[in-house]
Amino acid sequence: MTILNAKLRVGIVQHKAGLNKLNNLERATTAILSLAEQGAQLIVLQELFATPYFCQVEDTAHFDLAESIDGPTFGHLASVAKITGVTVVVSLFEKRAAGLYHNAAVVIGPQGEQLHHYRKMHIPDDPGFYEKFYFTPGDLGFEIALTPVGKLGVLVCWDQWFPEAARLMALRGADVLIYPTAIGWCPGDSQDEKSRQRDAWLTIQRGHAIANGVPVVVVNRVGFEPDLTGQTEGIQFWGSSFVAGPQGEIIVMAPENDEFEQVVEVDLQRSEFVRRIWPFLRDRRIDAYDEILRRFRD
Amino acid sequence: MTILNAKLRVGIVQHKAGLNKLNNLERATTAILSLAEQGAQLIVLQELFATPYFCQVEDTAHFDLAESIDGPTFGHLASVAKITGVTVVVSLFEKRAAGLYHNAAVVIGPQGEQLHHYRKMHIPDDPGFYEKFYFTPGDLGFEIALTPVGKLGVLVCWDQWFPEAARLMALRGADVLIYPTAIGWCPGDSQDEKSRQRDAWLTIQRGHAIANGVPVVVVNRVGFEPDLTGQTEGIQFWGSSFVAGPQGEIIVMAPENDEFEQVVEVDLQRSEFVRRIWPFLRDRRIDAYDEILRRFRD
Repeated sequence: MTILNAKLRVGIVQHKAGLNKLNNLERATTAILSLAEQGAQLIVLQELFATPYFCQVEDTAHFDLAESIDGPTFGHLASVAKITGVTVVVSLFEKRAAGLYHNAAVVIGPQGEQLHHYRKMHIPDDPGFYEKFYFTPGDLGFEIALTPVGKLGVLVCWDQWFPEAARLMALRGADVLIYPTAIGWCPGDSQDEKSRQRDAWLTIQRGHAIANGVPVVVVNRVGFEPDLTGQTEGIQFWGSSFVAGPQGEIIVMAPENDEFEQVVEVDLQRSEFVRRIWPFLRDRRIDAYDEILRRFRD
Repeated sequence: MTILNAKLRVGIVQHKAGLNKLNNLERATTAILSLAEQGAQLIVLQELFATPYFCQVEDTAHFDLAESIDGPTFGHLASVAKITGVTVVVSLFEKRAAGLYHNAAVVIGPQGEQLHHYRKMHIPDDPGFYEKFYFTPGDLGFEIALTPVGKLGVLVCWDQWFPEAARLMALRGADVLIYPTAIGWCPGDSQDEKSRQRDAWLTIQRGHAIANGVPVVVVNRVGFEPDLTGQTEGIQFWGSSFVAGPQGEIIVMAPENDEFEQVVEVDLQRSEFVRRIWPFLRDRRIDAYDEILRRFRD
């Protein structure tokens, strides 16, 4: 691993999203300026930060929220990145062509340049999260962003449940895994089920850190968003954005119910130490993994 | 999944291992009889249950501890399985030929028959755990044991750090993942490092449950075992055997410092529910995972 900074200062922006896209963008801008002022080198926004979580319903009108990957939201944030000199990970609803949309992430460098473009590879679909209606599965593969602050393995939300995605990023040399996400509870679920879900979400991503000996940065949205059509009960996004080290140890965790903006220091050199005592990459049985490529081994 | 028993009653045997192999075998036998009496249908012994953890040093004399997979230890436990009518997962030091040994697991059915043979695929090697000296990496692949109590995905210890192994077992239809293990602390490590290590070990295996929507049964040895050659400080095996459900939720956990024998009920039908709400197998991007088969993507 090429480590350009032994200590990486990551700014986390866990926000409630309102209905007004420009207002969300303005609030994100304020957060970036503030975190950059506090020394952040890398800032991560939550999944689809600019809009409410519109996938609660299937409505063709919501395609109006999409932009090209270098559209006005990118243009604005590129100027903010350039002014502040930080690297920013931005999740966007990408319009690629009429009838062809992606849940994308773009990494903007400190000169305001586009350093990387990722399209969410794993697309969920369950009641209240109708993403297969909106997003074509990504076709850019699992590639890393080469940035002045390190090699970033940027994935998005549902990707976080798939060890394969994290592994492919680590094998490509990612210094850190980054997940902008939008996940929450159905209000009708029991408290036990809610606890299990949030804990599972924390655990599996900490597991990716451990399996690969890399830190993980997860930025989730927070707050209740109603389903304006009344078809579902709405979603209570559970916040809990966190940073874990390469043994899965929690370094910082945001609250479940409040917004959160903070600079977190991540020691990228710890991966070198951890991978020496737990050299999993040395021992992978790549000669025996080929059936991973099957849907099911029946 | 074919679920023959909605509720599977698993007996956990977390023991301290003494120097005397026959004594270890006798104590395991007593535990099996007792747990079977308490209603266990499946009993899991810890890794290399019959011996101390001899891999603390490299000594050719220790190869004398190995047996053929259907040797006297198997023969004895087969008769115990038949008497009690339980299925038993046994970890053995297998002698295959002169100079060819494996860290193996055998699944014995309730008629005393050998149902399955597994050879540990991932072999560790670090100070105090010199397994590459003793064990040839497994060549039987990631296959499941078809038993009267369900399809068992039996893996062994170091395998537990590799998401690929768990995934391959789940794709083969495993109803439950089972890890006999022998892991502990180097006494000289700091308390913080010890906590991180044990927590990482719990977390990554809970992560396998979550990623695959299956319960996980982990049986570890416990207690301090000195390095009789004095080369190292010995190992404090951390116990903490546990059973987790398909959302990674802990159902039972054994103590860090004491022996533990208990029957634990696992609801195998919960996997059906969990995989309906979290259908990760539906969304895997098998078209984009081929570089998992590479050592590193450089």
